[in-house]
Amino acid sequence: MSFVVKTLNQFEFDQPFTLNGGGGLPSFNLTYETYGQLNKNKTNAVLVCHALSASHHVAGYYHDDPKNLGWWDSFVGPNKTIDTNKFYVIGLNNLGGCHGSTGPSSTNPQTNKKYANSFPMVTVKDWVKSQELFANYLGIEKFAAIVGGSLGGMQALQWAIDYPDRIENAVIIAATPKLSAQNIAFNDIARQAIINDPEFYNGDYYSHNTVPRHGLRVARMMGHITYLSDFKLTEKFGRTRRDQEFKYSYDIEFEIESYLRYQGEKFANYFDANTYLLMTKALDYFDPASEYNNSLQTALKKATAKFLVLTFNSDWRFNPIRSWEMVSAMLENDLDVSYCAINSESGHDSFLLPDQNYMDILKAYFNNISI
Amino acid sequence: MSFVVKTLNQFEFDQPFTLNGGGGLPSFNLTYETYGQLNKNKTNAVLVCHALSASHHVAGYYHDDPKNLGWWDSFVGPNKTIDTNKFYVIGLNNLGGCHGSTGPSSTNPQTNKKYANSFPMVTVKDWVKSQELFANYLGIEKFAAIVGGSLGGMQALQWAIDYPDRIENAVIIAATPKLSAQNIAFNDIARQAIINDPEFYNGDYYSHNTVPRHGLRVARMMGHITYLSDFKLTEKFGRTRRDQEFKYSYDIEFEIESYLRYQGEKFANYFDANTYLLMTKALDYFDPASEYNNSLQTALKKATAKFLVLTFNSDWRFNPIRSWEMVSAMLENDLDVSYCAINSESGHDSFLLPDQNYMDILKAYFNNISI
Repeated sequence: MSFVVKTLNQFEFDQPFTLNGGGGLPSFNLTYETYGQLNKNKTNAVLVCHALSASHHVAGYYHDDPKNLGWWDSFVGPNKTIDTNKFYVIGLNNLGGCHGSTGPSSTNPQTNKKYANSFPMVTVKDWVKSQELFANYLGIEKFAAIVGGSLGGMQALQWAIDYPDRIENAVIIAATPKLSAQNIAFNDIARQAIINDPEFYNGDYYSHNTVPRHGLRVARMMGHITYLSDFKLTEKFGRTRRDQEFKYSYDIEFEIESYLRYQGEKFANYFDANTYLLMTKALDYFDPASEYNNSLQTALKKATAKFLVLTFNSDWRFNPIRSWEMVSAMLENDLDVSYCAINSESGHDSFLLPDQNYMDILKAYFNNISI
Repeated sequence: MSFVVKTLNQFEFDQPFTLNGGGGLPSFNLTYETYGQLNKNKTNAVLVCHALSASHHVAGYYHDDPKNLGWWDSFVGPNKTIDTNKFYVIGLNNLGGCHGSTGPSSTNPQTNKKYANSFPMVTVKDWVKSQELFANYLGIEKFAAIVGGSLGGMQALQWAIDYPDRIENAVIIAATPKLSAQNIAFNDIARQAIINDPEFYNGDYYSHNTVPRHGLRVARMMGHITYLSDFKLTEKFGRTRRDQEFKYSYDIEFEIESYLRYQGEKFANYFDANTYLLMTKALDYFDPASEYNNSLQTALKKATAKFLVLTFNSDWRFNPIRSWEMVSAMLENDLDVSYCAINSESGHDSFLLPDQNYMDILKAYFNNISI
């Protein structure tokens, strides 16, 4: 049912780009993929924003790597939830990423060295600004929809606030208008684990030909627990032992330990530590209301998009109350908003998983979008 | 209102001690403190079992360290919740601990070197067995009560199962009959952070005159989040910033980061990493039903103690359902059990905090104990 991604594309922006936190880049490029055809009037474009660790590779697979399916492949394709017979779907790797877009592991053209720790802090606002430049480049005046889960949903919300004329529908899934103290706490511990890894070398591990593997593993393992519900972990692993008899050692005793260590190891093998740090900071800083007297209602005053806000009742990272804060601010502005808290046992990760109710709601919403 | 602890005591057991996991010790000692007077018939003894990181220092303060109040000082003392005018209260540091009892940082008398990674794995069952030897030494045939929160409560439960004739009342607070996959996951990540710290030296950091400080910090910070509720963290810290303006760097931006790093640093300064590893493993292995065909009801068949089971509705580490599993098994055995899920916003840490309802319930229960 998946389709082949023929080529990877690069959007190259060759002018200086100033970031929200004060830093700047002499230029940047964004890696992107597209699925479907842009129609003549360019009214059928859907931007899919990724979360912490995903990429531009939203759907399909590459000719030379048929097993590497896009992270939202169940949702994007011909006749799928977001039907590429109707929509022109775009996935891009965010600025600061490690999947082809300019990031800490890229070479700074001004120094011919990797950016490493000189890469400026990026915020959700910066991403949206860079995506707007990208939309200009493609000639897309208004996206039919901008959609994302978690950190991706935050980008959709920021779009609706910063560029109200350029977004018809904002689909915000499993997100929050700002992180809680607990959310920030988990992020900071992950960062501490990475930064204090002796292989981090103050972010310049590239020139030491190493990676802060142990820190990345701990960060990923901890993140992973927060993406799943207690119930799902119990159902999936419970207290299932690796061997029938305990070894009474620090080796793996329970399957959950084996699973998490595997996830941590896998992640440390492909994800750039500096990018991970940047992404968690973008999460922490995200708080669009803070520019508007801490009122999300005021922040949304100029918004004109229609909204679909989805949340999952087992998501303890960004629980349904956090989504309701957004819906409430939208309703106060008489905006067109649909909301659903979907029954799901998979926690925060639910936004990635093909649950029938979830897909039906999304499909119905996208079917109703006029292009 | 606190009283002075006059002396620290040592129980010295000079015979070999075989542990549940197969290892052994040539001898051991347990550090303990007592409050109140043991009555003539030795029927008024209350054993307070500690959780992961606490010690024998339950109440009062030392002559030379008046600010160092015991960890449950609000609860134990003359006319307090557990009234030392009536009860002889004993706090002891568990085997494997780092507060005076024999543990990994103790010297092995057979080698004259620190045990370090040769210290055997200890389980809750071992602790209870060592405490029984200690009771023999004091001539206490039956404890009026054995009480504890979290890992301390698990010891009270194990006592009621393993030594039914020697415990009149088991007071089990904020505990669980066995850890969930999520619980084990958090423990294993903490262990991975410590074990992979280059300063760990396979547990023999003593001979390198160092400690795996970064690993301990990450472990403690992560543990700390799980002890508190999301609500409490929001109430206490929210998104309060360190400075008015963001620095857009990896320095502390939010107060929650500052608090957690401080907690981590403090812990790394006094707690032994090997003990931390042991305690988390004791938690993971705890599952008294596993010896009885995985039936907690069967495990409790010979129990005769009266039970008080307390839990807190904001405790997401060991939530009320986990306590109810124990109550349910007790009821199936027609045991005398009182249960209360206490309203509290402080999460798992609630068992340490002087909430009025909580203290009233505990006090009423202890007042009703005949000695």
